[in-house]
Amino acid sequence: MATAYRFVTFLSDYGLEDEFVGVCRGVIKRYAPDVEIIDIAHGIPPQDIAAGATVLAQAVRFMPPAVHLAVVDPGVGTKRRAIAVVSKTGPPLVGPDNGLLWLAAEALGGANSAYAIENEGLFLENTGRTFNGRDIFAPVAARLALGMPVEEVGPPIPIDDIVRLEVPEAHVHDDHVHARVVQCDHFGNLQLNCVREDIESIGALIGDAVEIRLGARAYQVDYAQAFSEVAVGKLVLLEDSHRSIALAVNQGDARQRLEAKRGDPVIIARVPVGA
Amino acid sequence: MATAYRFVTFLSDYGLEDEFVGVCRGVIKRYAPDVEIIDIAHGIPPQDIAAGATVLAQAVRFMPPAVHLAVVDPGVGTKRRAIAVVSKTGPPLVGPDNGLLWLAAEALGGANSAYAIENEGLFLENTGRTFNGRDIFAPVAARLALGMPVEEVGPPIPIDDIVRLEVPEAHVHDDHVHARVVQCDHFGNLQLNCVREDIESIGALIGDAVEIRLGARAYQVDYAQAFSEVAVGKLVLLEDSHRSIALAVNQGDARQRLEAKRGDPVIIARVPVGA
Amino acid sequence: MATAYRFVTFLSDYGLEDEFVGVCRGVIKRYAPDVEIIDIAHGIPPQDIAAGATVLAQAVRFMPPAVHLAVVDPGVGTKRRAIAVVSKTGPPLVGPDNGLLWLAAEALGGANSAYAIENEGLFLENTGRTFNGRDIFAPVAARLALGMPVEEVGPPIPIDDIVRLEVPEAHVHDDHVHARVVQCDHFGNLQLNCVREDIESIGALIGDAVEIRLGARAYQVDYAQAFSEVAVGKLVLLEDSHRSIALAVNQGDARQRLEAKRGDPVIIARVPVGA
Repeated sequence: MATAYRFVTFLSDYGLEDEFVGVCRGVIKRYAPDVEIIDIAHGIPPQDIAAGATVLAQAVRFMPPAVHLAVVDPGVGTKRRAIAVVSKTGPPLVGPDNGLLWLAAEALGGANSAYAIENEGLFLENTGRTFNGRDIFAPVAARLALGMPVEEVGPPIPIDDIVRLEVPEAHVHDDHVHARVVQCDHFGNLQLNCVREDIESIGALIGDAVEIRLGARAYQVDYAQAFSEVAVGKLVLLEDSHRSIALAVNQGDARQRLEAKRGDPVIIARVPVGA
Repeated sequence: MATAYRFVTFLSDYGLEDEFVGVCRGVIKRYAPDVEIIDIAHGIPPQDIAAGATVLAQAVRFMPPAVHLAVVDPGVGTKRRAIAVVSKTGPPLVGPDNGLLWLAAEALGGANSAYAIENEGLFLENTGRTFNGRDIFAPVAARLALGMPVEEVGPPIPIDDIVRLEVPEAHVHDDHVHARVVQCDHFGNLQLNCVREDIESIGALIGDAVEIRLGARAYQVDYAQAFSEVAVGKLVLLEDSHRSIALAVNQGDARQRLEAKRGDPVIIARVPVGA
Repeated sequence: MATAYRFVTFLSDYGLEDEFVGVCRGVIKRYAPDVEIIDIAHGIPPQDIAAGATVLAQAVRFMPPAVHLAVVDPGVGTKRRAIAVVSKTGPPLVGPDNGLLWLAAEALGGANSAYAIENEGLFLENTGRTFNGRDIFAPVAARLALGMPVEEVGPPIPIDDIVRLEVPEAHVHDDHVHARVVQCDHFGNLQLNCVREDIESIGALIGDAVEIRLGARAYQVDYAQAFSEVAVGKLVLLEDSHRSIALAVNQGDARQRLEAKRGDPVIIARVPVGA
């Protein structure tokens, strides 16, 4: 009844300077030489669970059927659980129970069942408490890919017990949206926690100018469909590739320009006034 | 009549912090699970078409037969074309028509035919205008690797219409070469737009000293065959692995030492004078 | 009699900005399309042989049977030898003879035999002296993976002639350990050249506080089993995933906090005194 998977996807904050990622790849290949690894990203900022969760959730729906292995794990070695979550569309997710997997499970249709990874017979032997990616998560992901029934990882746990990530919600007040930066990408684009409908609900449409406020600063910005609909170096508000509203600079870096970081409040207002 | 390819090579400026590269890998594997992806590089400086074009051109001739997917795309979402270029030696290149593919096509024998990618039936559905790598280029590259005839991507376009990259040429004047920095690599080596014959034409041979001028600064430098023919920390002029002349520092970083960047003029003179 | 290997592992200081790594992957795939490449790490600090050797040695024992290709090569193009070392457990290592391979050979049971790579028939043609990874090491690693007998790379060399890396040893004096930083990882954890038994020999056990001295500075630090046994932001001494003693900061960066680098002396003392 268990499904085998040809692919294991892999996301972490391990970076590429050390052997961390390579060793996990090696462990997977030792257990499951025919399984192919698709690296999603390993440059998640160290211990940044929210960044890892966002990147993972935005990636899984574009992946072929796979076991999704994810490790951003500031609590490694403590009593925080290791879990396997089976999504409603099938693919299981493996990682620490710290909020990292929740958004991705939602993106895969929601969590169908969950298990605490406690079967030490699946772990690497003679290991310590600082590198669960190598010792616990990679071996378990490899076995699940080979078709091991998920029940073998350990006891089932109620789905409601899985740690969830608090995602701030945007609020619309009359003519403005109270949003927050939820992600900064490689290009310095700032993804906000609002969508096209929020912008439309304040009466702004593609082609309109809106006012953006960050703290005491205000900017007049075009609401467009592509970066290059504004001049090079200009701020632009647009719907990004994940259907979130994002602040960007055409061929530039909005994070640097606005000195913004994840969590920062951003107000988007319909009636532009002089900055 | 169409050729299938076992490999898709992949170059981009997407970096490895986010899901961009991983998502494109996933999309390719969804369409073509048996195709293998060879990552050429994903650390091209953001939107730096010339850097991407140079790296791609230097890589393709060492690759097995493959579809070459390349995305450095400051004009994403605008009317700049998406193209597939078939090289004279066979392998097709897929990417934006902004100069990125031209040098690589030349390295593969020149462009034999070219097509505008306009067949929306090949694209991912319900997507936006900010991530063509995922939505257009990866699905098209995967289909070409599976053996889809290139004509299916869209209408043919004249090869002369493909956007070319202006590559500055070096000039020899009597006893000196007017060159430019065309590429800086990971080690800080500065590749110039001149070759061994240019250096020979000013009368300098391996083992000779030459004078290098950048702006108002002048350096006496050995013209050698390997980095370590000069002392650790010393500047050296040599023929690099792509048969271009390069400025380097043995076990050091010439870019930092000379505070140089791509495009900077460099004069190489035969008669050394005191710096 | 020669063994074929399904995998080639690959470690380098080539970074991921340029075509270096991608070109080596391409060359391997041209010679051995069915061989799979497992990237161990490519972010070794440029020309840092000791860092590369440590990362490689810590990785190889977690890999499936493989040819291990490693290139950190400040002496490229000089008379430093290129070598293939066959380990006592089987897997061969390929790289420059500059100390890079020695610790990994030890981790694989020790060197059983060694050969100078001199058979130019195996090299890429018409190449220079600055990129042996592409021109010599990748083609040789690919052939060994295909089952070519190692004797074909060139003449045998005495194992005692292989360049070894000097690894500083820790010393225990009564109530304190004289150690050194041997490695800094992506998270800023500082691996020391001592093990649990050294700490026990000065009378400190898990749960005890110890005093750490770096130069004129002293810190009182808990000796624990996991990062998060101390408060977020606190220093901790623990056994890391390679059974070395390491200095870390829970969810922080010990390298930055202590302004430490590889080679720095660290004294660990049993009797804590005020800092």
